[in-house]
Amino acid sequence: MAKNSKAEQFRALHAGPRLLVLPNAWDFASALLLERAGFNALATTSAGIGYTFGYPIGQAMPRQEMLSVIHRMAERLSVPLSADMEAGYGDSPQQVAETTRLTAEAGAVGINIEDRTYRQDQPLIEIQEAADRVRAACEAARPFGMFVNARTDVYWLGGTGEAAFAHTVQRANTFREAGADCLFVPGVKDPQVIRRLVAEIDGPLNILAGLGSPNTAELEAMGVRRVTFGATMARAAYAALEQAAAELATAGTYGFMSSGSAHADMNRLLRRHPDPKS
Amino acid sequence: MAKNSKAEQFRALHAGPRLLVLPNAWDFASALLLERAGFNALATTSAGIGYTFGYPIGQAMPRQEMLSVIHRMAERLSVPLSADMEAGYGDSPQQVAETTRLTAEAGAVGINIEDRTYRQDQPLIEIQEAADRVRAACEAARPFGMFVNARTDVYWLGGTGEAAFAHTVQRANTFREAGADCLFVPGVKDPQVIRRLVAEIDGPLNILAGLGSPNTAELEAMGVRRVTFGATMARAAYAALEQAAAELATAGTYGFMSSGSAHADMNRLLRRHPDPKS
Repeated sequence: MAKNSKAEQFRALHAGPRLLVLPNAWDFASALLLERAGFNALATTSAGIGYTFGYPIGQAMPRQEMLSVIHRMAERLSVPLSADMEAGYGDSPQQVAETTRLTAEAGAVGINIEDRTYRQDQPLIEIQEAADRVRAACEAARPFGMFVNARTDVYWLGGTGEAAFAHTVQRANTFREAGADCLFVPGVKDPQVIRRLVAEIDGPLNILAGLGSPNTAELEAMGVRRVTFGATMARAAYAALEQAAAELATAGTYGFMSSGSAHADMNRLLRRHPDPKS
Repeated sequence: MAKNSKAEQFRALHAGPRLLVLPNAWDFASALLLERAGFNALATTSAGIGYTFGYPIGQAMPRQEMLSVIHRMAERLSVPLSADMEAGYGDSPQQVAETTRLTAEAGAVGINIEDRTYRQDQPLIEIQEAADRVRAACEAARPFGMFVNARTDVYWLGGTGEAAFAHTVQRANTFREAGADCLFVPGVKDPQVIRRLVAEIDGPLNILAGLGSPNTAELEAMGVRRVTFGATMARAAYAALEQAAAELATAGTYGFMSSGSAHADMNRLLRRHPDPKS
């Protein structure tokens, strides 16, 4: 019931014409604070979660550990949560389906699946194989009403020009035919290219924002349906730690303490979301 | 060998006359970034670790989960790590001893044990019982060369004036007689009181820095041996997230991204510390 309605809620947020601004949490406190900031839904960042546990990107973090983090957030958030599961943790469509089912069971109502191998010799999964994986994820997601966001990394891995554009559109539309609910194209900031992607891709488009990307109002005006932020918010937080550490190491002062929420405030926030196990 | 030398190294950092500036990490990335900032040793913050997993303070986080976080950091840091284990997770000195042994086995070379119950009716553990727990921790720590920091919360829980001063000194000196290597008195910022604590407590003094506390040079001049920061660095990091979220929610812009380390930099940092299991 609650889970179902979250899935429907999340799907509806992609129906347009409004842009879904979907910030990415990397741990429990970041999720609660983003929820408190008023966003309608949250995503995870696998890279940011990896930072907190000491794993680099590329499915170095074991699937079960990743699912525990997602479960912990999903169980206690009021808003829908979408999970970044990298390339679906599997060598086959069956394994991607299993990952999708486990992610839904962990409480996420959306999932990202990317077409990347993390191998130097062949960085992208071959298009038909990638489509088979998206199809498997969509079939596994259906009983849960889970929303599948298929990501293609042609631009993200350095692709440029018309060849990258055509390759991206081909992959996105193939993934759409395979059942994807939304298409995620990270690595594009140029407004002209974004407009053309909106026009050529047969489904809702998710853009990754970076420094220099069009702002959220501009993305909405272009017809983009969803914007996400990867690990940039996590890195902004760690940057504040680095500034605090530099102040402490050089001046020996505590100016960094003037910006934080009080401990009592954090504890109230944690207690307002009582652990269902206790 | 490595573990032993870290324990000796950590103990030597308390020998004076220099102040040990010991910042508190709350997850793996914060530990790596603090190490990179050049500190000689690190501590954990149980409150901050609780934030990331969704537990309020007061041993709400299961001991085994806390130990996993500590193990993950200790295993991959080059500098010594001291673990905040709240009141030692136990109703008896035997249980505190077990917690101490498990913490040493997780790779920490220092441990904090506090004299707090987290109950409203009797917030402090009775002094002889608290001393028995410190003694049990010290006996369990000895085979590992682990450094025991005994904390008394008389001031932290709101004590003031001469009664609090006398009570704090009595507890600290009783814990010192029970074997504590260092005495931790959070909740004191007044330079006069800090100087009198240095004079009256028969062992190295650890002060918790807060806004308005004497800076590190001043603490060193007063004879304080160690300064820690609790969850204040974690809260400064989450404050940066809240600022990023506010910018995104109101202006729809991404200025917060200009301060963070690059993703490539974070991944290099993670890869420079390869997981020994892989």
